[in-house]
Amino acid sequence: MDYTYAPGRNHLFVPGPVNIPDQVLRAMNRNNEDYRSPAIPALTKTLLEDVKKIFKTTSGTPFLLPTTGTGAWESALTNTLSPGDRIVSFIIGQFSLLWVDQQKRLGFNVDVVESEWGRGADLDVLASKLAADTAHTIKAVCIVHNETATGVTNNLATVRKILDEYQHPALFLVDGVSSICALDFRMDEWGVDVALTGSQKALSLPTGMGIVCASPKAIEASQSAKSLRVFFDWKDYLKFYKMGTYWPYTPSIQLLYGLKAALDLIFEEGLDNVIARHTRLGTATRLAVEAWGLKNCTQKEEWFSDTVTAVVVPPYIDSSEIVRRGWKRYNLSLGLGLNKVAGKVFRIGHLGHLNDLQLLGCLAGVEMVLKDVGYPVKLGSGVAAACAYLQNNIPMIPSRI
Amino acid sequence: MDYTYAPGRNHLFVPGPVNIPDQVLRAMNRNNEDYRSPAIPALTKTLLEDVKKIFKTTSGTPFLLPTTGTGAWESALTNTLSPGDRIVSFIIGQFSLLWVDQQKRLGFNVDVVESEWGRGADLDVLASKLAADTAHTIKAVCIVHNETATGVTNNLATVRKILDEYQHPALFLVDGVSSICALDFRMDEWGVDVALTGSQKALSLPTGMGIVCASPKAIEASQSAKSLRVFFDWKDYLKFYKMGTYWPYTPSIQLLYGLKAALDLIFEEGLDNVIARHTRLGTATRLAVEAWGLKNCTQKEEWFSDTVTAVVVPPYIDSSEIVRRGWKRYNLSLGLGLNKVAGKVFRIGHLGHLNDLQLLGCLAGVEMVLKDVGYPVKLGSGVAAACAYLQNNIPMIPSRI
Amino acid sequence: MDYTYAPGRNHLFVPGPVNIPDQVLRAMNRNNEDYRSPAIPALTKTLLEDVKKIFKTTSGTPFLLPTTGTGAWESALTNTLSPGDRIVSFIIGQFSLLWVDQQKRLGFNVDVVESEWGRGADLDVLASKLAADTAHTIKAVCIVHNETATGVTNNLATVRKILDEYQHPALFLVDGVSSICALDFRMDEWGVDVALTGSQKALSLPTGMGIVCASPKAIEASQSAKSLRVFFDWKDYLKFYKMGTYWPYTPSIQLLYGLKAALDLIFEEGLDNVIARHTRLGTATRLAVEAWGLKNCTQKEEWFSDTVTAVVVPPYIDSSEIVRRGWKRYNLSLGLGLNKVAGKVFRIGHLGHLNDLQLLGCLAGVEMVLKDVGYPVKLGSGVAAACAYLQNNIPMIPSRI
Amino acid sequence: MDYTYAPGRNHLFVPGPVNIPDQVLRAMNRNNEDYRSPAIPALTKTLLEDVKKIFKTTSGTPFLLPTTGTGAWESALTNTLSPGDRIVSFIIGQFSLLWVDQQKRLGFNVDVVESEWGRGADLDVLASKLAADTAHTIKAVCIVHNETATGVTNNLATVRKILDEYQHPALFLVDGVSSICALDFRMDEWGVDVALTGSQKALSLPTGMGIVCASPKAIEASQSAKSLRVFFDWKDYLKFYKMGTYWPYTPSIQLLYGLKAALDLIFEEGLDNVIARHTRLGTATRLAVEAWGLKNCTQKEEWFSDTVTAVVVPPYIDSSEIVRRGWKRYNLSLGLGLNKVAGKVFRIGHLGHLNDLQLLGCLAGVEMVLKDVGYPVKLGSGVAAACAYLQNNIPMIPSRI
Repeated sequence: MDYTYAPGRNHLFVPGPVNIPDQVLRAMNRNNEDYRSPAIPALTKTLLEDVKKIFKTTSGTPFLLPTTGTGAWESALTNTLSPGDRIVSFIIGQFSLLWVDQQKRLGFNVDVVESEWGRGADLDVLASKLAADTAHTIKAVCIVHNETATGVTNNLATVRKILDEYQHPALFLVDGVSSICALDFRMDEWGVDVALTGSQKALSLPTGMGIVCASPKAIEASQSAKSLRVFFDWKDYLKFYKMGTYWPYTPSIQLLYGLKAALDLIFEEGLDNVIARHTRLGTATRLAVEAWGLKNCTQKEEWFSDTVTAVVVPPYIDSSEIVRRGWKRYNLSLGLGLNKVAGKVFRIGHLGHLNDLQLLGCLAGVEMVLKDVGYPVKLGSGVAAACAYLQNNIPMIPSRI
Repeated sequence: MDYTYAPGRNHLFVPGPVNIPDQVLRAMNRNNEDYRSPAIPALTKTLLEDVKKIFKTTSGTPFLLPTTGTGAWESALTNTLSPGDRIVSFIIGQFSLLWVDQQKRLGFNVDVVESEWGRGADLDVLASKLAADTAHTIKAVCIVHNETATGVTNNLATVRKILDEYQHPALFLVDGVSSICALDFRMDEWGVDVALTGSQKALSLPTGMGIVCASPKAIEASQSAKSLRVFFDWKDYLKFYKMGTYWPYTPSIQLLYGLKAALDLIFEEGLDNVIARHTRLGTATRLAVEAWGLKNCTQKEEWFSDTVTAVVVPPYIDSSEIVRRGWKRYNLSLGLGLNKVAGKVFRIGHLGHLNDLQLLGCLAGVEMVLKDVGYPVKLGSGVAAACAYLQNNIPMIPSRI
Repeated sequence: MDYTYAPGRNHLFVPGPVNIPDQVLRAMNRNNEDYRSPAIPALTKTLLEDVKKIFKTTSGTPFLLPTTGTGAWESALTNTLSPGDRIVSFIIGQFSLLWVDQQKRLGFNVDVVESEWGRGADLDVLASKLAADTAHTIKAVCIVHNETATGVTNNLATVRKILDEYQHPALFLVDGVSSICALDFRMDEWGVDVALTGSQKALSLPTGMGIVCASPKAIEASQSAKSLRVFFDWKDYLKFYKMGTYWPYTPSIQLLYGLKAALDLIFEEGLDNVIARHTRLGTATRLAVEAWGLKNCTQKEEWFSDTVTAVVVPPYIDSSEIVRRGWKRYNLSLGLGLNKVAGKVFRIGHLGHLNDLQLLGCLAGVEMVLKDVGYPVKLGSGVAAACAYLQNNIPMIPSRI
Repeated sequence: MDYTYAPGRNHLFVPGPVNIPDQVLRAMNRNNEDYRSPAIPALTKTLLEDVKKIFKTTSGTPFLLPTTGTGAWESALTNTLSPGDRIVSFIIGQFSLLWVDQQKRLGFNVDVVESEWGRGADLDVLASKLAADTAHTIKAVCIVHNETATGVTNNLATVRKILDEYQHPALFLVDGVSSICALDFRMDEWGVDVALTGSQKALSLPTGMGIVCASPKAIEASQSAKSLRVFFDWKDYLKFYKMGTYWPYTPSIQLLYGLKAALDLIFEEGLDNVIARHTRLGTATRLAVEAWGLKNCTQKEEWFSDTVTAVVVPPYIDSSEIVRRGWKRYNLSLGLGLNKVAGKVFRIGHLGHLNDLQLLGCLAGVEMVLKDVGYPVKLGSGVAAACAYLQNNIPMIPSRI
């Protein structure tokens, strides 16, 4: 039995879970296997090498955890920090807020820097705090690369610059859940110590794999970190890595083969082409929003996100109603406004394995829903704006034939 | 290895093969089975009952032939006619032309009635011929319900009316390849003797099953028809139907389960709702074409097809280039112009398991391609026209939740 | 809804349709595509080259027809012969009988050579007929390489030798349905003019593709052959081959990709290794039958089939009951005895993508069923005999890891 | 690319991950969906009700955690206990040992009761400890229902009896990873406070879902338990249960639909029939082991496991070599001996969606491998013993046809 509504395809435009490429679905359409046979370690070995490329790291150590993004967060924190450690963390939307909540519940001393939702992390405050912290009581700076709730991308290069400026030894922990494989991310160049993502985001897999990558400094920190952890403990993984069997407990065979297929697709397209495609679709979306006469929740261009756009609706409209009708009438899945922006924004996710016409179908759907809820949109206006941009900016991807 | 181009989904808008619903893909994702076990006959029995509903017949006998539409044509002709038999047949486009070609090659005496491509079958000529044929030398009238090459739908009720008017006993043979399950089709009410379709059309299955339905009169005719046939011979099927084992030779297990899933989806939506959905999407497409300032190849509204629209391009544009660029740039599959209309029209197939936003994505893609080949289309115009219609005409389909 | 009985896997041991490898199921798990895009012709071109290898031909022309084995038969006959042509054909079991029935119904003058079921084709009679036919009235010799109903393999090299001995120009038409890709078959070396198989046999695909390969002599014959044919006409294929679009009508996209995957598997294993594997499993099966104290329907070792074994049951047992109970009690699909040997034999198909333990599970199941129907089998005896052989004859297949 | 060796199916007989039914594979062959749409909560609601049945509880609260068995352990412990809490725990094999290791690392005061590997938990010692603990310092009794490393099933009813006898309020925490859905398990009747399993065991799903069920007493305990937890915290789930959205973070859409299909299969067969089938296959396996002249690692019949059999090999054989050759030569996956029994035992997993002939194929394979490594097994002996039992004990499962 299925619960999806009505004929034709579901148009999935939440910012995760995202559309799975057919090639990945095919690769995952398989029986279980013994993960202690020679096959799975051989596959895992390849994956651990390949997955480093999406982090742009050569020195990092990746972990493919059978968990979600929330578990990946916990893994990043508990392996590198000890209870009571002071950390600087930013709240700029619902997901950074949830991470801070986790940080507090895990017993860290969280020095929270809040911004208005729709703005990026306040890095000036970070600079002041680091400047003041000559005693190096700050053990880590935790930041979300892309806040999925508001469509805000933080500038990680600047964070590194500030850390360097004050020669501060704090660990640099990054939630790359809605960025890695979609936005420009450079673990080694930016000196990120732990970066993480979830399989159901730009990797375009089902949910179930939290991918965490640790710098040598983070690995070193994990040897003395006192936070309690067992399931998420890197130590067990590292022990099995050394033995060449790789898995302290059972992985999902299907997700491993799926990850192989997903990475193959990304590398075939070219990681930089993948990132450029996200810029292209993100730009087209923003042009459509502008054409509709609506505001982007993100207040400045420097923070614009190429993976998700949060669209502000006029006060007389409940954005949840837009999401509800999109699903009910057009088999369109849009993202709700969350917490502080509930009812005020709806979100268009434009990340993962996606192309122009899929996005344009979504934009046309949004126009009809907007009209339907009483917003005086000019039908076709957003699509036209997006088309004009897209049609003039055809990427040069080498065809297979 | 795959040969598809670029990231994201392929947008399949040829008038067949069409998009397969996920539910059908799932149902077909299975190993072979022994077709002589009790399971397959039980499944077949259900299918033979269910499939009659899509023909709107209670008295017909269906055959699920492991073949294509071309094979289904041959089955219809060779089982009911004898070499040299005089038949009236219409050429109004490439597919009716191919059927006539087959009729000639099979040795029938074909009385061809041609129309300009873009017009329907000339039923006045049919009336004259039947009126003149008091000796009843005409053994069959063969007509394509929907000409896929030009997007022309013939009026079958009128054909029946003419046959009745002259009390002519000719068999009434209908190619319903791009109509059945999408357009209003009434086998019993219209006294159709043989109707046929292919699995890859509105049934939204893979290619490989020709579905032929024969009236009692056609079954009777098959007992004396002298055309040579073995593979396509209904007699072998009827023998196995009687034995309850159903298959004179091996069927595709996967297509049988797929057909079950496809029919379940159609009956859940409601056959009349399915037909209304095609009218809705066909109308939206035509409104877009009009907004683009382009002509429908179909010359009169009475012949407009709700499953395929052939769009006439200005003389300075080669329509094949539109199809080529659609595929190359936007992963969009449109139909080529064929034979007499090659280079002059491109076709948008809007049949099968499809919804509003899929079509709108296609229309947006066509707009970009049109612009790209130098046609001065106003971007967004067609989408706007389609949206305006669709948004005001939401169907009332009962949701599952 | 499924109709399969009980938990666990179905054990499919009919001699077709056979088990589909997971890799092939995965390759076929896909949406339709436009077969007029550049992708499908590119794929087809590769397939037409690759498929020649399984016939061991370089000069042959293959046709991938959307039909079954019965249709492939019809294609072979109608493209090379004219009504009334005299052909020599052999009946040695149900499938050769059905082919002869088709030959007669298609209007050929069939000179039938019958053998007792369980014996091979009587090639001495063939020799006499060819010797006597100095006027070359015999236009074709039609023979089944492997009779699926009795498990009898005919010696095709001898047929060629006889034809050569009398310098007889008759066409040499071979049904390789249950042989090609499993038994040693050499189209060019043996001067076979048309060879054919079905996708659901040793190729281990779903039903739906009849694969026919024609020698240059057969292609030449097709230019003057007068048998009526349209759907099965090679001429249309050859026309589209020349244009590089390959398909006169719609192919099954899924079967094309499936065929690619199936051929890739065969070539990776090595065609000769595949054939050796069939010899190995066929031998093991025969040793089990011997250990059970039962007779092989095939009367002489020279005719033993490595793809199917027909086992003769004692007169007090109805072999259909064995098949029925196998399915009902053990989810085991065995082949029925057909026609003259109905009730007297049951068949174990051991062709396609299959390995030792699958076969041994089947043999164990047969033992339990035999006991269940009152035959005094020593449980484990057949399995032991098969194991002893298999364990001492491990093939040297290069592992991937 | 695949890494599996050689043609034919892999024979998966490790005690998890186990074979996935085709129906479940089909149900999981699907794109992602928005888990905040109305569909997924509706599905989840059904699942939470249905899943209670496999625990035989009406009062329990289930959690479907995106994790493995190891994570499910951690969830059970951290939600009900506080650091320093005294717990009684048993080591009888590798998995109970790993759980104790986790308990210690999570900061509990673990009172370990060890048994020789191959014996069940020493419940007499439990009785003494409880008797002595009049102060109720013991907060929980933790026990593995079925030790997967040795094939030992503990008697949970007796544990409950002892707890009741001393009216001890300790929580009763059960690892049912290789028991639930395969062995008789009665959460309510036995007063189990937390029971847990993993999706890849008897539920026959891919790895990735830890299913934990908590009694009202456990839920109450969770309100005061002081162990740090965030990802595994039931509180977040309970909050979302109340809101009717169910998920504090993203679940695997595919596993949810897979679980529905898996439960549907179990309920169609009947949970008690499923359990009886495991008894039947377990018995057959043990009879084979006996026939081979080998010893079961489990020392007493009362502890025999119906989901996994650990077979002791003679001292001159390295059991790892058996596993290695089984995989390499016969595409057979057996379980290794772990830790104390490494090299000494190999394991046959016989749990999940499995039937007679699958098991018999495995047993035949084991015989060939045993012979191959120099053990003087009589080929066919184990298969014969298993067949004799199975053939005389056909279960009465109602067929669908």
